[in-house]
Amino acid sequence: MKRVLVTGASGLVGRNVLQPLLARGFEVIAVARGEPQDPPVDRRVAWRQADLLDDSSRGELIAEVAPSHLLHLAWYAEPGLYWEASENLDWMRATVMLTSEFASAGGKRAVYAGTCAEYLWNSRPLEESSPLAPTTLYGIAKNATRQAVSDLAPTLGISIAWGRIFFVYGPGEDRRRLVASVARSLIAKERVATTKGDQVRDFMFVGDVGDAFAALTDSQVEGAVNVATGRGVAVSSVTSLIGEMSGRPDLIDAGALEQSQGDPDSIVADTTILTEEVGWTPSTALEEGIAATVEWWRTEQSTSIQVH
Amino acid sequence: MKRVLVTGASGLVGRNVLQPLLARGFEVIAVARGEPQDPPVDRRVAWRQADLLDDSSRGELIAEVAPSHLLHLAWYAEPGLYWEASENLDWMRATVMLTSEFASAGGKRAVYAGTCAEYLWNSRPLEESSPLAPTTLYGIAKNATRQAVSDLAPTLGISIAWGRIFFVYGPGEDRRRLVASVARSLIAKERVATTKGDQVRDFMFVGDVGDAFAALTDSQVEGAVNVATGRGVAVSSVTSLIGEMSGRPDLIDAGALEQSQGDPDSIVADTTILTEEVGWTPSTALEEGIAATVEWWRTEQSTSIQVH
Repeated sequence: MKRVLVTGASGLVGRNVLQPLLARGFEVIAVARGEPQDPPVDRRVAWRQADLLDDSSRGELIAEVAPSHLLHLAWYAEPGLYWEASENLDWMRATVMLTSEFASAGGKRAVYAGTCAEYLWNSRPLEESSPLAPTTLYGIAKNATRQAVSDLAPTLGISIAWGRIFFVYGPGEDRRRLVASVARSLIAKERVATTKGDQVRDFMFVGDVGDAFAALTDSQVEGAVNVATGRGVAVSSVTSLIGEMSGRPDLIDAGALEQSQGDPDSIVADTTILTEEVGWTPSTALEEGIAATVEWWRTEQSTSIQVH
Repeated sequence: MKRVLVTGASGLVGRNVLQPLLARGFEVIAVARGEPQDPPVDRRVAWRQADLLDDSSRGELIAEVAPSHLLHLAWYAEPGLYWEASENLDWMRATVMLTSEFASAGGKRAVYAGTCAEYLWNSRPLEESSPLAPTTLYGIAKNATRQAVSDLAPTLGISIAWGRIFFVYGPGEDRRRLVASVARSLIAKERVATTKGDQVRDFMFVGDVGDAFAALTDSQVEGAVNVATGRGVAVSSVTSLIGEMSGRPDLIDAGALEQSQGDPDSIVADTTILTEEVGWTPSTALEEGIAATVEWWRTEQSTSIQVH
C-alpha cells in the first residue's frame, strides 16, 4: 500500500497534487494548519489538521499516519515577505525534524518542494548541477534544507527527491502575484502598469506542477529535479495573453514600471531529468493555462461581487 | 567606546578571547548559559547569563547590553554528537535572529565562528574562495548561517566577518578530543591506541585562536577568513610530541586504530587573508603549545586525584 502524507495540502501546489496522487493509486492523507477547504478536493482524501512547526503536533501526526511516502510542500509563503522572513529558518528545522520522524515511523520515500531561487541566476538553461548561489533567506534556507535532508537520507534509509519549482501560475494563486493581479485588474476594467516585460521566465500551469510532483513522488529518481517546462517565455507575452483572454489588452501600460535592478534576463530550466528520468512532460500550453486562469478569476470576481 | 558581547564565552575559544579583547581596548560583556566560571578570567569582564536559544532571554540581553561589536562563538558542540544533531538548526535560527537584534540595538560589527567543515575537503591549501561542500549537518548549518547573515548584513547596515576554525587544541579542551585524550592517557601511564597518523591537519593553539578572533573583531575585514596557521602537520607528529612531553612515548600504539574511511589526507588552510588583511600571525609553535597542554593536563589530573 502506498500511503502519502501531503503537507501544505491547502496551498497552491498542494491542492493540485491530490488528484494526480489518487490517480496513481496512493492513499492520500492531506495535512493543513487550518480547517480543510470546503468542499474537499475529493472525498477519498483524508484531511488532518496539524501545526508542523510544533514538535508535538508534528510528531503525533507522523506517528498516527505512518506514511510510506511524504510529499512535503508546506513552507512560509506570504507574498512579499517570505524572501527574507525568519520563518524560513523555522521551516528548515521543521523539515529536517519531519524527515527524521518520517523515517522512524517506517517511511521510505520523501519528496520536497525546492526552488529556482537556489540557483546562481547567470546560466541558462539551469541544470540541476548548475552553480547554486541563493541570495535570499528563502533560497538559502531551502538550499540548506536540501543539503541537510540529503545528508541524512542514507543514514535514515530513505530515498529523497527535491523538486525545484520555477514560475507557477493558475487558478487559486495569491491575488498579489503577477498573473493573478494583471488578470484581476483587466477583468475589473482597470488599467494595469507592468514592466517592459523582456525578462524571460519558465512559467508552468499549476495543474502541471501538481501532476509533476505526483509523478516525482511515485518515481525512484533521487536528488534535485527541476519542475518546469524547459521553455522560456517573455513576461510581456504572458501579460499580452492575459490581455487577449480578458478582452482588454488596451488597459495594459507596458513599460510603465521599471524592471527591478538585478532582475535576471532569463530564468529557464533544463528539464532533461524530469522528462527522461521521471518520464513526465507538461500537458498544458501557455495559452490554455492563461485562458483557464483568466476564466477562474472572472468567475471568482463575479461571485465575490454577488456575495458582498 | 567599543563594547563587545562575546557569546559562548565559557567555551574553549571563548575563554581565550576575553583577555585579547580587553587588551585591544574593548569593554567586554561575556555571556554563558550557566554560571560564570570561577574565578572569572579577568575582573574587568562583565558576565551575563542567558539562553540564546530562548527568544525572550536573547532579546533582553541584546537590548540591555546594546553592544557595538558582537563576537558570536556559541553553538552546540557536544563531542561525538554535534556533527548530525538537530541542535545545529536551533543555533542557525538563533544566530540569524541574534544578528537582526544586534543591528536593531545599534550594533555595527559582528564576527562569527565558522568551520573548515564548510569546505569541500579535496583541495589544498583551502582558500576562503575554495569550493564549499559540507557533508554534515553541522557544516551545512554553519555554511547556511554564514550565507544568511551575509545576505542580511547590507540591509541591517552591519559589517560582518566569518572566522573558519580548523583544528584547535590546548588547555581546557574536552577530554574526549585527540590531544586531550592522548595526553591524559600518557600522564596516567595508560597505553593509547592511535591511527598511523599520516593525515595532515592545520592545528592551532587555542590561545592563538582567541587572539586571532580578537584581531578579526577589531578589524574591518569582511566575509570568510580562515583562522588557522597555514601549516600542515601529520597527526603522528602531534601524538609523538605529546609522547615526548609526557615522558612516555612508548605507550603510544601508533597504527592500532584504523583511519576512518573517507578521512581526507590533508586539511590545511591558506591564511593569506588572516596574515595580510587582518594583519595577524600566530605566536605559539606546536612544541610550545603541546608542552603547555600536557602540563595543564598533568596539573589537572593531579588536582583531580587529590580532590577525589
